[in-house]
Amino acid sequence: MPEYTVGDYLLDRLAELGVTEIFGVPGDFNLELLDHVIAHRDVRWVGSANELNAGYAADGYGRLRGMAALITTFGVGELSAANAIAGSYAEHVPVVHIVGTPSIDVQGSRRVIHHSLGDGDFDHFHRIAREITCAQAKLVPATATREIDRVLSEVHERKLPGYLMLATDVARFPVEPPTGPLPRYTSGTSPRALSLFTAAAARLIGEHQLTVLADLLVHRLEAVPQLEALLAADVVPHATLMWGKSLVDESAPEFLGIYAGTSSQESVRRAIEEAPVLVTAGVQFTDMVSASFTQQIDPARTIDIGPNQSTVAGEVFAPLDMSAALEAITSILTARPTRSPAVPQPVPDAPDPVLEPDQPLTQKALWDKVCGALTPGNVVLAEQGTSYYGMARHRLPSGVAFIGQPLWASIGYTLPAALGAGLAERDRRPVLLIGDGAAQLTIQELGQFGREGVPAVVILVNNDGYTVERAIHGPAAPYNDIVTWRWRDIPAALGIPNPLSHRATTCGELDAALADAAAHPDDLVFIEAVVTELDVPPLLEELAAAIAKANKAAGS
Amino acid sequence: MPEYTVGDYLLDRLAELGVTEIFGVPGDFNLELLDHVIAHRDVRWVGSANELNAGYAADGYGRLRGMAALITTFGVGELSAANAIAGSYAEHVPVVHIVGTPSIDVQGSRRVIHHSLGDGDFDHFHRIAREITCAQAKLVPATATREIDRVLSEVHERKLPGYLMLATDVARFPVEPPTGPLPRYTSGTSPRALSLFTAAAARLIGEHQLTVLADLLVHRLEAVPQLEALLAADVVPHATLMWGKSLVDESAPEFLGIYAGTSSQESVRRAIEEAPVLVTAGVQFTDMVSASFTQQIDPARTIDIGPNQSTVAGEVFAPLDMSAALEAITSILTARPTRSPAVPQPVPDAPDPVLEPDQPLTQKALWDKVCGALTPGNVVLAEQGTSYYGMARHRLPSGVAFIGQPLWASIGYTLPAALGAGLAERDRRPVLLIGDGAAQLTIQELGQFGREGVPAVVILVNNDGYTVERAIHGPAAPYNDIVTWRWRDIPAALGIPNPLSHRATTCGELDAALADAAAHPDDLVFIEAVVTELDVPPLLEELAAAIAKANKAAGS
Repeated sequence: MPEYTVGDYLLDRLAELGVTEIFGVPGDFNLELLDHVIAHRDVRWVGSANELNAGYAADGYGRLRGMAALITTFGVGELSAANAIAGSYAEHVPVVHIVGTPSIDVQGSRRVIHHSLGDGDFDHFHRIAREITCAQAKLVPATATREIDRVLSEVHERKLPGYLMLATDVARFPVEPPTGPLPRYTSGTSPRALSLFTAAAARLIGEHQLTVLADLLVHRLEAVPQLEALLAADVVPHATLMWGKSLVDESAPEFLGIYAGTSSQESVRRAIEEAPVLVTAGVQFTDMVSASFTQQIDPARTIDIGPNQSTVAGEVFAPLDMSAALEAITSILTARPTRSPAVPQPVPDAPDPVLEPDQPLTQKALWDKVCGALTPGNVVLAEQGTSYYGMARHRLPSGVAFIGQPLWASIGYTLPAALGAGLAERDRRPVLLIGDGAAQLTIQELGQFGREGVPAVVILVNNDGYTVERAIHGPAAPYNDIVTWRWRDIPAALGIPNPLSHRATTCGELDAALADAAAHPDDLVFIEAVVTELDVPPLLEELAAAIAKANKAAGS
Repeated sequence: MPEYTVGDYLLDRLAELGVTEIFGVPGDFNLELLDHVIAHRDVRWVGSANELNAGYAADGYGRLRGMAALITTFGVGELSAANAIAGSYAEHVPVVHIVGTPSIDVQGSRRVIHHSLGDGDFDHFHRIAREITCAQAKLVPATATREIDRVLSEVHERKLPGYLMLATDVARFPVEPPTGPLPRYTSGTSPRALSLFTAAAARLIGEHQLTVLADLLVHRLEAVPQLEALLAADVVPHATLMWGKSLVDESAPEFLGIYAGTSSQESVRRAIEEAPVLVTAGVQFTDMVSASFTQQIDPARTIDIGPNQSTVAGEVFAPLDMSAALEAITSILTARPTRSPAVPQPVPDAPDPVLEPDQPLTQKALWDKVCGALTPGNVVLAEQGTSYYGMARHRLPSGVAFIGQPLWASIGYTLPAALGAGLAERDRRPVLLIGDGAAQLTIQELGQFGREGVPAVVILVNNDGYTVERAIHGPAAPYNDIVTWRWRDIPAALGIPNPLSHRATTCGELDAALADAAAHPDDLVFIEAVVTELDVPPLLEELAAAIAKANKAAGS
C-alpha cells in the first residue's frame, strides 16, 4: 500500500469540508499531487482550459457548496488565477488555492528554475497571495498538517480565500491521517454582550412592526435559517440589496423588493428608509448596489447585525455572532402577544402590451421572458453588465438562486462560475446570462460543460461590444467595439457534441429557443439573443450615470 | 483646444520611446484615458479579448520594438495581466503596465468601491506589482511627470516591466508637455575597470582562437551590433543557448549550433566546453535550456560578459557595460596580426529518407517541413512544449527571428505574443507554432489577427492534450487530457473572415497547407497538424526526464 502523504491529508480534510470536485490546471510542479487527487475516494479532478477560468469555476462552486479548492502550478498558474482569488476575497467566497511549487531543496539552491522570475527569490508569489487571501502557509514537512488545518479552518469559517504553497517534496512526505475532525473556532459570542444587546434591541423595537434589510453576508456566514426564523416570527416586511438577491424567497408577500438607495423602486425605498425600526443584517453597501452610496438609513432607528458585532441605535455589542443576534431578535418578536398587520400589496402594474412574435428583441423583453421561463431549482448567473441590472428588479420564483459579482465586477466571471455552480449542485440547472464582450474573456470554458455534463442554458446577449462601458463613457468609442464572432458556431467548435444552438433576433425566436431549452433539460442549450448596441436596462443607466459622476468628481 | 494633461504627457513619452501601439482592455477607470489614446497622433489602441492576452501581446511587441505599453483597469484588469507581466520580468521584456484607478479622493474615502476588495485599502495591487516589476509609481498631480519619466527610463534602460497607477483625476490633471528628451542613465562603465578588464582579457586570450557563447541578454541590452563586430573580428566559432536562439545568423559557417549542457549535440558540447578561451556574453543558465544545469564551463578559461560587470578567469571588473566589454574584446582580436583557422564544417548527416505524401505526420517531419518553409523576415513563435523543443536544434535561415519563453514557460503565451510581434514589425510575417492544450488557454485572441490584419501562419499541433506534461509525468493520466475541439472551425467562429483553414494528418497534406500559406502571404493561414499523443521531440524527452528527476529529488 502506498504511503499516506501530506497531499493525502490535505485531500482528506477537503473532503471532510464537503469538497468533492477540485478545479485547476496541471503543471509540472503539481502533477504528482494530481495522481493523489485521481486516486482519492471522495474527490474528483475537474481540469479547466486555463487558470483564471478554473478560479472562477471554484468560486461558483464555493458559493453554493460552502467550500472549494483550486490547484495550480507555481508562478504562471497561480498568477493567472489571481484575479479570481481576489474576487473570492471581495465577494466572501471560501476557496483554498493550492499551488504546486519546486521542491524545498531546489528553492534553497536559488537557481534559475522555470516558472520563477530567475532572481533566486521563490517567495514573490507567496507575498502576492498575502494581499488577496485571509490565510497563507508555505508548507514544510514538520508542520504541514497543523498548517493545513489552520488555513482550511480560516477559509471555511471566515468564508474568504486561503493559500497553500505545496512543494513537490512536501506533498509526498509521509504523515499520519487526521485523528479527529478539523478544529472549529468556538463561538465568538459573549453571553454578557448578547444579553445587553437583546435588552437594547427590545427597547428599540417596543411594539413597532419590524422591517428587515438583509444581504449577502447572511448567506456567506450560513445564518439563513436564523434569518428565515426571524422573518417567520411576525409579519416582517423585508428587502435585500442586489448583492444578496435570492437570499430570501422573492415570491413571499412580505418581500418588498430590492433596495438600491435612490435607484430603488419608490415603494421599496420608503418602506426601508421610513421604517420605524429597521434591522440590517449582513449588509455592506457598495457603490454598484447603492447608486453610489445614496442609501438613507437612520442609525437611531436601526439594529445592525454584522458578522462579529451588532449595534443598536449606534451602540456596539461585541463579540456577538450573527446567528446569535438574529435569534435574539426572533425571541423578542415571538415574545410579543400580537402579530403585526399584513404588508399592503402593491397595485399590480398595468400588464405590458403583448409582444408580437416578429417584434425585434429588446433588453426589456429579453429579461421579462428569461425571468418568466425560470423554474424552481434554477441557478441564475448574471454577468455584471446589462444581464445583472436587467434581472435585478425582477422577482425570482421561489427556489431560484441568483449569483452576481457586483463588488469585484470582473467581466467574464459568470461563464466558468456557471460550470462550478452546476457541479456544486448537480440537480440544479444553471442559467447563464452573459454579454458578448464579457463572454469573449473566458469562452474557452464552454467545452467543459459538455465534458462534465452540465446542462446549462446559456443566453449570450449579442449587443456588439462592451455596452456596460458604453453606458458609463464613450458610447461610440472604438475601444468599446469587439471582434465580431459567429456565436452560433461557437459551441460546436469548442467541443459541445451536437449542440442545441439558437439565434434569436425577435421575440418569437426567443420564445422558441426558451421552449427548446425547457424541452431539453439534460442538454446544454445555447441562445444568442441579439439586441441593439445602446439598449440599456433603466437601472444600469442610473447606476452608470452615478459612476461616471464619481470618476469625474474631485481632482482639480 | 483641450488642455494638455498627465495622460497626454505619458502618451508623448511612450511615443518618444517608439511605442505606436498600446495594448489593453477598457474598464471604467481607464475609459477617459483611452479617449486620449484614440486622439493621439502617434499611438494607436489595440484592444484585446482579455487582459492576459493583452499582456502577452504587449510582451511580444516589446521583444521586437524594445518598448511596449499595456493599459488595464484597477484590480480585475491588472490582476488578470499579472502572469504576463511577471513573464516579462523573467524574460527581460520592457512593458509599462498603466492601470486606471478610482480617483485619489475616492481612494481617500476608503469606501467599498467596485473592483476593490471592499476593505478600504486601495494599495493591495500596487504592493502586488512591486513583486513583478522593476519600478512603480502611484501618480499624483504634483510629481506625475517626474515619476512617469523615472519609471519609463527604468523600464526602457533595464528592459524589465514597470507599473503606473493612474487615477482618473490625475490622468486629466493639466501639466506642461516635455521640454526635452527622456533622461537616460549615463554609461555605467568606469574607464579604470575597462582598462584593467581589457588587459586581463588580452592576457587570457593570448594567441588562442576565441570561442563565443552568447545569449538573450545581448539582445535585450541592445548589444547585438557589438556582438556582431566581435564575431567578425576573427574566425570565431560561436553558439547560443536556446533562450537566445536567432541572436546570431544561424546560417553562418562559424555558427556551431545550440549549446544545452549534456543535451547539446556532441560537436557543439565539445567546442564550447573544451574551448581554449571562451567568451560567454549575456548568458544566464536556466534549468530548461541547460538540461538542468549540466553545463560544464571552466571559469579559468572563461571571460564572462554580463549586463553591468564582467569577469576574466573569475576576477570581477565593474562597473562595465556589456557593449564596452564586447568592444574591448573586438579590439584585442583586431590588434592580432593573424586570423584564426576556419571552423571545420561538420559532415552533413545522411539525408533523411524521402517521406511519401500519404505517410502519417510525425513531430520530426512536422518541424523539418516547417523549418524548410521559413523565409527571411519570418518571426517564429514557438510555444514552450513540443514546438519549442522541436524547433530548437533546427538551423534557422538568415533573417528569421525566434521567440520562445523557456524561463517563464507559461503555456498559451505565444498566441497573443504573435499578434504583438506582427504589429511591432508589420513587414515580417509571424509563424506561430502551438499545441492544442496551450492554444486553449488564450484562443480568444485569434480573431484579433483578422481585425488587425496580421497575416500569421498558425500551426496548431493537435496531439490531444498536454504532451509536454505527459513527457514529464502521467503520460496516460486523465488530467493531461483536454476537451476535444473542432480546430478547423475555430478561425471562422472567432471572426476571421473567409479563413484559409487546413487540417493535415499526412506529410502530403502538410506540404499542401504550407504551400497555400506561401501562396497567400497577406492572409492568416491556419493549419491543424495532427500528430500522435506521445510523439515527443528527442530534446524535450531528455529535458523532461531531467525535470522529473529534479521534482523527485530531495525531501525524505
